Amino acid sequence: MLTLYGFLRSGNVYKVRLLLAQLGIPHRRVEVSQLADDTARPAFRAINPIGKVPTVVFDDGRMLSESGAILHYLAAGTRFWPADPWPQAQVLRWMFFEQYSHEPAIAVNRFLRVYTGPDDRTSQIEANHRRGMHALAVMDAHLGRHDWFGGDRYSIADIALYAYTHVADEGGFDLAPFGNIRRWLGHVRSQPGHVLLTQETSAEPVVDLDGVPVSTAPAA
Amino acid sequence: MLTLYGFLRSGNVYKVRLLLAQLGIPHRRVEVSQLADDTARPAFRAINPIGKVPTVVFDDGRMLSESGAILHYLAAGTRFWPADPWPQAQVLRWMFFEQYSHEPAIAVNRFLRVYTGPDDRTSQIEANHRRGMHALAVMDAHLGRHDWFGGDRYSIADIALYAYTHVADEGGFDLAPFGNIRRWLGHVRSQPGHVLLTQETSAEPVVDLDGVPVSTAPAA
Repeated sequence: MLTLYGFLRSGNVYKVRLLLAQLGIPHRRVEVSQLADDTARPAFRAINPIGKVPTVVFDDGRMLSESGAILHYLAAGTRFWPADPWPQAQVLRWMFFEQYSHEPAIAVNRFLRVYTGPDDRTSQIEANHRRGMHALAVMDAHLGRHDWFGGDRYSIADIALYAYTHVADEGGFDLAPFGNIRRWLGHVRSQPGHVLLTQETSAEPVVDLDGVPVSTAPAA
Repeated sequence: MLTLYGFLRSGNVYKVRLLLAQLGIPHRRVEVSQLADDTARPAFRAINPIGKVPTVVFDDGRMLSESGAILHYLAAGTRFWPADPWPQAQVLRWMFFEQYSHEPAIAVNRFLRVYTGPDDRTSQIEANHRRGMHALAVMDAHLGRHDWFGGDRYSIADIALYAYTHVADEGGFDLAPFGNIRRWLGHVRSQPGHVLLTQETSAEPVVDLDGVPVSTAPAA
């Protein structure tokens, strides 16, 4: 069974968890929290020298990081990655857009607002807000003409963009003006096998890097 | 013949030009300069509503942006994109690394230092410098164990990382400590069909968005 290293509430980790759930591939998870600086610990650097999550380790010891590369590797040959070159190009186009133009603004403001206290990063948050609103406007315009991001069906491009868009409000981004995005969010949620961000999907009890069980149950 | 929109000296545009040259695919280029804010002009937004370069338009009118998606689309089925899933995963892993962890630090500092005057961005340049040096250290460690980034041969992952790494000094990044990177840069340069960043590769005279011919000859 593959092992997924990463923080439950990380959108980048959620992308992989959502695809694993929809593919019906069981996994165990090790909680590696950016909040506790776990990614800098030697125990994690021994697994992934770059120290990035999500990181996946397969049964034979092979390691893979970068959420986009993991999504592509798991999706190849399935209905989540198109067979034809042009839709493939669209999927990758939106996945690179997400990593370059969307995540660094929308996910980072979520992190700054939810996980760090009031601080002096106001100018960074404002600049990210402008960038993030532009990314959302680009997405909304696309969704005015298309149902999905990577061709004519749900794909890993939708998974990649859904992860942080559906919690954009936590970063201070109001989705009310983006009717096309809100409709698309509902379509993503209605896909077979969908799991929520806070829904535990590990097939075994989650442990930390020291092997100590951790509870990730949401405060209900 | 396909049309490539973008600034000659942009590393992201250079990635596409280098692959086109190595594949022997002729193109014409339209100079779209970020310096002149061409990417915001209605004439360019009519072609690519997102306003990003490089943008490629094929003969039948199809448009593609995001350098990583363009590289994948052009390379699929050629020696620049591996046939097997695991090397494919490595190629994409490093291409996403480049767009998330490398380019926003190294390319942005090159832009701030070369194309903008002395200004008040010192703290941004310093933060980017730390991030960029970390990315270079990650690359150098990888190249201590492997010849290339995406498996056992030169691929679009090497093209993607070469573009801004080989001019990292323009962003204030000293490559002297990174012997593995310097050796790899030489190996990339020795690949058949290599072209330099400042080498014009357009098969037709380069024009701007108004169709006016522009000279891009380097000051020699």
